[in-house]
Amino acid sequence: MAWARWGCCPWLVLLCACTWGCPKAANLTREDVRNCSTSPPYIPVTAVNTTERLTALRQQIQMLNLSAYIIPDTDAHMSEYIGDHDKRRAWITGFTGSAGTAVVTMGKAALWTDSRYWTQAERQMDCNWELHREGNIVTWLLTEVPVGGLVGFDPFLFSIDSWESYNADLQASDRQLVSIADNLVDLVWGSERPAVPSQPIYALQEAFIGSTWQDKVSGIRSQMQQRREAPTAVLLSALDETAWLFNLRSSDIPYNPFFYSYTLFTDSFIRLFVNKSRLSSETLQYLNADCTLHMCVQLEDYSQVRDSIKAYASGDVRIWIGTSYTTYGIYELIPKEKLVEDTYSPVMVTKAVKNSKEQALLRASHVRDAVAVIRYLVWLEKNVPSGAVDEFSGAELLDKFRGEEEFSSGPSFETISASGLNAALAHYSPTKELHRKLSSDEMYLVDSGGQYWDGTTDITRTVHWGTPSAFQKEAYTRVLIGNIDLSRLVFPAATSGRMVEAFARKALWDVGLNYYHGTGHGIGNFLCVHEWPVGFQSSNIAMAKGMFTSIEPGYYQDGEFGVRIEDIALVVEAETKYPGTYLAFEVVSLVPYDRNLIDVSLLSPEQLQYVNRYYQTIREKVGPELQRRQLLEEFAWLQQHTEPLSARAPRAASLVSLLAVSVLAILGWSA
Amino acid sequence: MAWARWGCCPWLVLLCACTWGCPKAANLTREDVRNCSTSPPYIPVTAVNTTERLTALRQQIQMLNLSAYIIPDTDAHMSEYIGDHDKRRAWITGFTGSAGTAVVTMGKAALWTDSRYWTQAERQMDCNWELHREGNIVTWLLTEVPVGGLVGFDPFLFSIDSWESYNADLQASDRQLVSIADNLVDLVWGSERPAVPSQPIYALQEAFIGSTWQDKVSGIRSQMQQRREAPTAVLLSALDETAWLFNLRSSDIPYNPFFYSYTLFTDSFIRLFVNKSRLSSETLQYLNADCTLHMCVQLEDYSQVRDSIKAYASGDVRIWIGTSYTTYGIYELIPKEKLVEDTYSPVMVTKAVKNSKEQALLRASHVRDAVAVIRYLVWLEKNVPSGAVDEFSGAELLDKFRGEEEFSSGPSFETISASGLNAALAHYSPTKELHRKLSSDEMYLVDSGGQYWDGTTDITRTVHWGTPSAFQKEAYTRVLIGNIDLSRLVFPAATSGRMVEAFARKALWDVGLNYYHGTGHGIGNFLCVHEWPVGFQSSNIAMAKGMFTSIEPGYYQDGEFGVRIEDIALVVEAETKYPGTYLAFEVVSLVPYDRNLIDVSLLSPEQLQYVNRYYQTIREKVGPELQRRQLLEEFAWLQQHTEPLSARAPRAASLVSLLAVSVLAILGWSA
Repeated sequence: MAWARWGCCPWLVLLCACTWGCPKAANLTREDVRNCSTSPPYIPVTAVNTTERLTALRQQIQMLNLSAYIIPDTDAHMSEYIGDHDKRRAWITGFTGSAGTAVVTMGKAALWTDSRYWTQAERQMDCNWELHREGNIVTWLLTEVPVGGLVGFDPFLFSIDSWESYNADLQASDRQLVSIADNLVDLVWGSERPAVPSQPIYALQEAFIGSTWQDKVSGIRSQMQQRREAPTAVLLSALDETAWLFNLRSSDIPYNPFFYSYTLFTDSFIRLFVNKSRLSSETLQYLNADCTLHMCVQLEDYSQVRDSIKAYASGDVRIWIGTSYTTYGIYELIPKEKLVEDTYSPVMVTKAVKNSKEQALLRASHVRDAVAVIRYLVWLEKNVPSGAVDEFSGAELLDKFRGEEEFSSGPSFETISASGLNAALAHYSPTKELHRKLSSDEMYLVDSGGQYWDGTTDITRTVHWGTPSAFQKEAYTRVLIGNIDLSRLVFPAATSGRMVEAFARKALWDVGLNYYHGTGHGIGNFLCVHEWPVGFQSSNIAMAKGMFTSIEPGYYQDGEFGVRIEDIALVVEAETKYPGTYLAFEVVSLVPYDRNLIDVSLLSPEQLQYVNRYYQTIREKVGPELQRRQLLEEFAWLQQHTEPLSARAPRAASLVSLLAVSVLAILGWSA
Repeated sequence: MAWARWGCCPWLVLLCACTWGCPKAANLTREDVRNCSTSPPYIPVTAVNTTERLTALRQQIQMLNLSAYIIPDTDAHMSEYIGDHDKRRAWITGFTGSAGTAVVTMGKAALWTDSRYWTQAERQMDCNWELHREGNIVTWLLTEVPVGGLVGFDPFLFSIDSWESYNADLQASDRQLVSIADNLVDLVWGSERPAVPSQPIYALQEAFIGSTWQDKVSGIRSQMQQRREAPTAVLLSALDETAWLFNLRSSDIPYNPFFYSYTLFTDSFIRLFVNKSRLSSETLQYLNADCTLHMCVQLEDYSQVRDSIKAYASGDVRIWIGTSYTTYGIYELIPKEKLVEDTYSPVMVTKAVKNSKEQALLRASHVRDAVAVIRYLVWLEKNVPSGAVDEFSGAELLDKFRGEEEFSSGPSFETISASGLNAALAHYSPTKELHRKLSSDEMYLVDSGGQYWDGTTDITRTVHWGTPSAFQKEAYTRVLIGNIDLSRLVFPAATSGRMVEAFARKALWDVGLNYYHGTGHGIGNFLCVHEWPVGFQSSNIAMAKGMFTSIEPGYYQDGEFGVRIEDIALVVEAETKYPGTYLAFEVVSLVPYDRNLIDVSLLSPEQLQYVNRYYQTIREKVGPELQRRQLLEEFAWLQQHTEPLSARAPRAASLVSLLAVSVLAILGWSA
């Protein structure tokens, strides 16, 4: 529940909703965590004193006659990452982990978070707070809130779904969920609260725009006309919806080039709710902000969104929304019968399919991204043996290499740089204080991506510079086979990802292994790195030509090592022997896999052939770029690492095996 | 919609819900179909005069002040097949097809059916009836029923879902859906209506019972205790639920050994609603029907079910139901807050997992069933060339062979016996009047099954006695590969079928082919041949050890031929290299595939190895049975048809190919 984040997709859910074997956090020494059972309680230096904050918050709670107040870790757009001024749950609890919900009553203060964060919470919270490792928030509320009691919440921090779930349970037990538009934490946070972003909002350069905003608006307007329910307006709540629609960007959200905004548009007007002072006169001109015709963008202040929607909804209108990421703060304003509800707004669905220019832009960003990753891998190969590299400094260097690429605009998410057993925690990121040294004796997993003006990237490679164990090689190779088998699949148009993701798991299943996260997610053009609604989960929409998705099977051996091999792929039309509308993936990530970890004897002739074709593509696309940039050492490395793999098995049978491969290739068994 | 049948699963939905390319019915000569546009209209002899029936029905409609009355083709248990006395829609319209809904107003009479039945409807209906090939019933009702008008329906013939769908749309447009417990068609059908079945209801012999009914009741009662919502009772509406629970059978429904019944049981009583006179004194004794303790079955008349449930529901109770097949006639009696709603009742879910005795029984029935099918295939091989066999006589002979098997109780569904282009219609069954001759020049598809006291069977084989075209061989082989690849899959416990069914399609997808029906369904022990909730659709529950499912990919070339290869498989624990709870399928159907249609060069070494292992199993299990029965010709046929397949390709490369296969086998690439 605490993971239900939107805006960009809640990727952590995929990575961490492991029913079977969530890796456990390492034990810390006793002094690092609080001990509330001693007298006086032991509070580590890392904990925050929340007594005054809670006293102030309880005054607010009391003034409103509430029995409890819920503080989630979301923002008003269900964003995947949230800005500092939205980190209310972190401020009130002291706990800074990215997932958790706090509830405060007059007598108690409680936090729910998942096993990833239990130790961190015990280090950061003082003894004002109960830490709930298990159990349901509502069940707890029912014991703490009397019958008839009021439970307050900020409707802008609740998705429709989470509101419905709380409301149904509380109402059934005669407690009332009360929407309070003024956030109570903000009221007590006061001047300490980080400022709301005010940096400029800018239009993308012509070269990086797939379609003009006018064309996008026209396209959505014609979808409104075609829709049976005849919506009169579309309301955009997710930040990437508005950023995409107007080709505008800023940097309000970490890793995401967005700005706080809403958009409401009809056939006759377009209203952009935003802090107007952040738009330059050029940008205002770009938006035709000085007129009120149907292709002019009327600016209204961000804070006016509720009033404006309420006023519009009082007419004879039908407002089309994406329910998965619209907050209850918006939803409660519109009478049910005036809503046209889809899981995803038409903007979200349209954005998922990239036109040919957007495809070319995304491809180009992946070539430069490959250069940065290859530079890093070459550097690691030279420097890891000396013992001078750690996870954190490595991640910093990779960010630096990316930053040196043309059109770079920073990382697209916090780099996962994980050595040895740390890689078994699928979500692990090192910090300046806590990290592990890289070693030739251990596997190393690096999952990273960049924001570029032309595209967003995301790639994972796992490497070993020494002698991997047979099991490590087998695990790696089976993950690679999964990646290959899904990447080379041919499937009917409009197949949902859910129906085919098992192809990425089969090679692991064959021997009783598996991974407990999703197999892939959509990705944007200088937008979200985890972009809904594309992917392989049941909540994703069907695959269509022009979509981009990651393909990223993995394997995690708790306490030992982790493997993930992630590429971004474009959905293209497949050429089939018999006519039909079939699709296939074309991988646009361009970094070779680690030969040192591949057990070639496990690959079928078709899989080998696929990898070798992919390697040829890498040579053709990245080789010239490395040469142009005089990165000759990297070029040599690339040539070496993309040498065609052959079926020379490490056993005596090698020759026969090679023969077999050739024979099968001759017989035309390739897919 | 008309396909939404329950009780046993609506298999026709799977077979016929083809979005892309439903095969079309062959054109008939003009005289065969009605022509309502001439004056006087032309009515073929095959049509039924419905004028009097409609007049009588309209009197009833008028007396109740209704504007329209809906007549679906369901029974009160959402059964897959319905008894003659339930064929109300067929009687009132004249149209006997298995799918269709009729609506009668004071001025009009209209039928909706799908493309399979359009020609048949034009042959069987007179000009009182409009045939609707497209369009929605509700949309039509809105034009025919004035605002404020009443639309009547029999609540026992509506599933909860279909009621909700009609009700939402009508209510939104100010028309009212009115539940009328006395069926109006029955009132006018009168003495012509076939009698309600009265044959004995009998207990299964001890040898064919997996668990006693007392054990089953105890098991469900403990599930009631474990359930959070604390249900006080379980209500069974589907006929196979009650038949399974009490180990009782009869023959009220075609192909299904069931009897009209409901069951309501709590911790303290068990009520069976049934026509009491159909139970012998032995059966009454078997049910402890003479006492009222918690392990005694109290018999109440079938017609009392509404009153009894209503009375029970007035107390402080919670009634657990399976919503997918409970009718609105039951649902409307129970206050919402007194319902514990699951898609499938605990009986339905428990029944899906067969215990070891039930598994053994089902396996045994499949050995005898294989004997019947093999006898038929041998006979066809000898008799088809002479031109004396047709689809209908073939089906009759197969039914006869099955009937001669021990414990036989008739076919488990209407045999699909389809030659040449007829097999492209996935649901086709021949009739005495309309059928095609079998020929050595055409492919022949036979999909059939038997009811035996120990198990229900279902198997499809496709054969060709002459020289198939290269495309026919390729299509057949790719369907076979799909069957093999799903059958040999290893997958984690609790994987849903939906996630893995694409393995049955991949070999077809590879070349741009596909099939547009489901990949499999559950099956019972002398129960439904299409048994919910097991299968590969999104509405099916996760796979578990002990379930049986069919695996039946196909390919249909419109106007030319059809292929389907169907086996029944048991879900078993898989042994994996690394420890884990993994599952696999063990095929229990035991009839070889047609060697004449297999292009061995398309099979991978692992697929070949799989087929040869399967053939070895057939020899071991069916061979001795054929010998015991002195079916020596069949035994010789079996030996010949289960010779291990080798990679001898039909081209010059055969030797190399064989080498490749051996080499790969040596290298241990097998799954």
